[in-house]
Amino acid sequence: MLQLSGVFPPVPTAFDADGNLALDQYQENIRRLCDAGVDGVVLLGSNGEYVYLSDEEKLAVIKAGLEAVPDGKLRLVGTGCESTRATVRLSEQAAQLGADAVMVVHPNYYKPLMTRPVLLEHYRTVAKASPAPVVLYSVPKFTGFDLPVDVAAELSQEPNIIGIKDSAGNVIQLQEFLQKCRPGFNVLVGTGSAFLAALSVGVTGGVLALADVAPRECVALYRLCQQGDWANARELQARLLPVNQAVGGYMGIPGVKAGMELVGLYGGAPRLPLLPLPEKDRTALRNILTAAQLL
Amino acid sequence: MLQLSGVFPPVPTAFDADGNLALDQYQENIRRLCDAGVDGVVLLGSNGEYVYLSDEEKLAVIKAGLEAVPDGKLRLVGTGCESTRATVRLSEQAAQLGADAVMVVHPNYYKPLMTRPVLLEHYRTVAKASPAPVVLYSVPKFTGFDLPVDVAAELSQEPNIIGIKDSAGNVIQLQEFLQKCRPGFNVLVGTGSAFLAALSVGVTGGVLALADVAPRECVALYRLCQQGDWANARELQARLLPVNQAVGGYMGIPGVKAGMELVGLYGGAPRLPLLPLPEKDRTALRNILTAAQLL
Amino acid sequence: MLQLSGVFPPVPTAFDADGNLALDQYQENIRRLCDAGVDGVVLLGSNGEYVYLSDEEKLAVIKAGLEAVPDGKLRLVGTGCESTRATVRLSEQAAQLGADAVMVVHPNYYKPLMTRPVLLEHYRTVAKASPAPVVLYSVPKFTGFDLPVDVAAELSQEPNIIGIKDSAGNVIQLQEFLQKCRPGFNVLVGTGSAFLAALSVGVTGGVLALADVAPRECVALYRLCQQGDWANARELQARLLPVNQAVGGYMGIPGVKAGMELVGLYGGAPRLPLLPLPEKDRTALRNILTAAQLL
Amino acid sequence: MLQLSGVFPPVPTAFDADGNLALDQYQENIRRLCDAGVDGVVLLGSNGEYVYLSDEEKLAVIKAGLEAVPDGKLRLVGTGCESTRATVRLSEQAAQLGADAVMVVHPNYYKPLMTRPVLLEHYRTVAKASPAPVVLYSVPKFTGFDLPVDVAAELSQEPNIIGIKDSAGNVIQLQEFLQKCRPGFNVLVGTGSAFLAALSVGVTGGVLALADVAPRECVALYRLCQQGDWANARELQARLLPVNQAVGGYMGIPGVKAGMELVGLYGGAPRLPLLPLPEKDRTALRNILTAAQLL
Repeated sequence: MLQLSGVFPPVPTAFDADGNLALDQYQENIRRLCDAGVDGVVLLGSNGEYVYLSDEEKLAVIKAGLEAVPDGKLRLVGTGCESTRATVRLSEQAAQLGADAVMVVHPNYYKPLMTRPVLLEHYRTVAKASPAPVVLYSVPKFTGFDLPVDVAAELSQEPNIIGIKDSAGNVIQLQEFLQKCRPGFNVLVGTGSAFLAALSVGVTGGVLALADVAPRECVALYRLCQQGDWANARELQARLLPVNQAVGGYMGIPGVKAGMELVGLYGGAPRLPLLPLPEKDRTALRNILTAAQLL
Repeated sequence: MLQLSGVFPPVPTAFDADGNLALDQYQENIRRLCDAGVDGVVLLGSNGEYVYLSDEEKLAVIKAGLEAVPDGKLRLVGTGCESTRATVRLSEQAAQLGADAVMVVHPNYYKPLMTRPVLLEHYRTVAKASPAPVVLYSVPKFTGFDLPVDVAAELSQEPNIIGIKDSAGNVIQLQEFLQKCRPGFNVLVGTGSAFLAALSVGVTGGVLALADVAPRECVALYRLCQQGDWANARELQARLLPVNQAVGGYMGIPGVKAGMELVGLYGGAPRLPLLPLPEKDRTALRNILTAAQLL
Repeated sequence: MLQLSGVFPPVPTAFDADGNLALDQYQENIRRLCDAGVDGVVLLGSNGEYVYLSDEEKLAVIKAGLEAVPDGKLRLVGTGCESTRATVRLSEQAAQLGADAVMVVHPNYYKPLMTRPVLLEHYRTVAKASPAPVVLYSVPKFTGFDLPVDVAAELSQEPNIIGIKDSAGNVIQLQEFLQKCRPGFNVLVGTGSAFLAALSVGVTGGVLALADVAPRECVALYRLCQQGDWANARELQARLLPVNQAVGGYMGIPGVKAGMELVGLYGGAPRLPLLPLPEKDRTALRNILTAAQLL
Repeated sequence: MLQLSGVFPPVPTAFDADGNLALDQYQENIRRLCDAGVDGVVLLGSNGEYVYLSDEEKLAVIKAGLEAVPDGKLRLVGTGCESTRATVRLSEQAAQLGADAVMVVHPNYYKPLMTRPVLLEHYRTVAKASPAPVVLYSVPKFTGFDLPVDVAAELSQEPNIIGIKDSAGNVIQLQEFLQKCRPGFNVLVGTGSAFLAALSVGVTGGVLALADVAPRECVALYRLCQQGDWANARELQARLLPVNQAVGGYMGIPGVKAGMELVGLYGGAPRLPLLPLPEKDRTALRNILTAAQLL
């Protein structure tokens, strides 16, 4: 079974000034993030504004993105759609284009209808059809509810479902995933502010917006924990906390893009309806990055 | 300004046994609902499973659906997408195909980022581009948050934004929309269980899943209120309440479709990941419809 | 069975400048509210700051308050405490002092533990022990959760439980109480902003903070609805809405007290930790009352 | 400034079969918990059912409880009440009876009114009046909202406010308390399931219902973390997780009491409206304790 461990930045999709795809800049960002030492990338995650892309654009982004990933780095691609059939199709396409695994956010629009049987059937259908292994994806701040632990536990018995990325930032829930899913099931945390705490309880890696802005530091934090140097890990996590509370938190995608720009990567504006980070917040972000020794 | 008053069923999209569009049955449903006396229809609302359709399918549904609506009935089409550009394009297409107005759910995936400026900019851009007038659409049980009253109030000043459909079922909020939006702004309720109460405070109509199953009764309820016959209106609302609590509530779209089937319209299965109504619930629904004198 | 219909102000407990009970002013307020035509009063409701009073103070307030109520008006007293035994004792005392009924908020501190068996056992124990009939009381904005409809329905079968006051402002839930509780069970609404809508669906009265400030207008609204004059009722409700959104809503108890002062009743400060209404809000409230023709 | 570090069980208040205080058993429990190596105790915390006790009973519990604590162990006493004046009085009394610090849950019934100025004024008034230093206490599952980080940060500047116990189990928030409060401010976690993770980010101790049932193991976990032996700490935390998910989680106080009984301490029933743990859950709990090697 594919092992997912280490640091994975969820690469933002790059747009030009007209809101069209900027694939060259996207590829350049991926190359530079990989050069910084991350263990792989996630394309078309929530930070990739996947809900703002047409089907054609998604394929173009996957194709360009996967091309840019150097050998030896893991290639994860977000392929969750609201309908099962669209999710199956995009997962097939992503696998054909070279994805090592697909990351599938659960359908979430009809929240009260997303019952246990619905979620089980959806993921089983996707897992059976997808040539690439499936990683479950729970991000309640966007979807409005957690993927229940017992659903994930049952799905972990499917041979082609290999892990879960949980962005709730709840270490208790992360421990429950670790205990109730089959041994070896990959549990990744999706919140940079909880990275150290998640590693302390046994999580093996993170998909971190923080790693879009501070890839080296995230990798360093991961290594300190692996070496058992928790005192220095704690200090580094504390230093990074305000950065992630901004870019991974209240500033959101506009903040991630502004932060990338400030550290020398391509940023650009998000796609409408998202608005670029206001100038005032950009100044605040610069100060935060400076205080964290990232500038 | 277009006046929206009376009863508007949000027509479910019809699928065949393979999950493909069943446009003939869809058209037949529309004709029969209109024959039952409703004032118009809403295509591609939340009950239309619009999030499960591809772009091509949406156009096919709009085209077929609008063709089936008899003259003299209002044609509303849901065109909200997550991105502003997709919403603009679909609104243009719907208008070209003959929509009288477009109903635009606010973008909602990135919940914490859907701030006042983002929502204002989104709707203004759509309103400026759309040839057909725009109706705002708030449905917190699916989107996770209410469209704020002050945002709607400000948007009601835009010439091409003519109303709001609010499915929260909160009569206090409905009164606030009535008070704070410009005079004549159309305020529609989106919950059959609150139809009488909403009409009592001045709302002029409803987009009601209940009207997919009980169109005649919804129209009768509306007329009783218009005539000031509140005693009989109350009795009718009480009779319909359990029906709507089922089909508009905990049974959701599978319940609406099963209910339509039971009253002689085309039902069919919802599209995956939604599952058909379980047999046990179908029996319960039959009893509810019988008790409400709909069978 | 005692019938609860009409308008019941939840009288705020009066304090002097040192935060001690001001019973003379309290009695005078009660007399004047009753003179204004209300059908009875509620002592020690949430607006009575009952959670800030010692056991001795509660008894003093009940004694003084009940003395001040003229004959022919209903006397309801809030006696809910967290523990069953304290609730029983206070209900006994209130009955001995002359309460016509006791209004019992459900225990709520240990929210996840307030299961169906716990709530049923609590209310049954209180109902068996209380000499005065019991009114259930649900106020989720303070307790954090609704008293479930099915729990109320089951409790409505107890001979000594005669009604429910529901302050959620949710007309759908009010209709469910009306349908599922035994015939004749008193269902009162606890939100002035939803008074007309609640009456439209069959609720028989209201416990309204709005009636502390505008007792005559609340009574007039109730009578218009009884006479079937919905057009004028709607106009009056619309006029009162901004008043209630302030005093019954975002301004809370400090707003109710400031509003009472502005209309010529005794107001005074709430007890700490509540702070008096800030001067800025007091000015806003004066303008709201003037616009509503209450000044 | 008083340093709070290590493990503090929040001792349940012991009742006899009639629901009256069982002070001898209470004292015996305290002695045995202290013998097991904990660093101190919390009397009248949420697990102490403080909301179910009369004023007289609270004093009796404090007096008896403090007497039983051996020298060298810290004595914390919960003294939060809804009103500022009651909180001040009880804090004074607890200090006179020998409390080393008082733990003050914020007032919480009037949730929307518990604004920043209200909370600041409340705590400052209590801190000025209390002879014993004050520990803030946030427990959103019971109070319905978190004590905001910025309020705690500002209060940490008060000389007589020395720490916070946060039971939210949110490690990100714990890190924010550590960063934004004055240096040396004591930050304690209130959830056994998050103990290891909280220690990993710099929290210095825990007030853990888990420690009522497994005091030795909690102390061992704390020491492993202090020694930097995170591998064994993780294993122990994983072993204890199911125990805490039961007694600190869905089983609540009835579960804590049943668990104490199973490990040989005095349990007894909680006070009504809380019901004793059902027999079925008691069997489940026994199995959980056995699996965790606590029986």
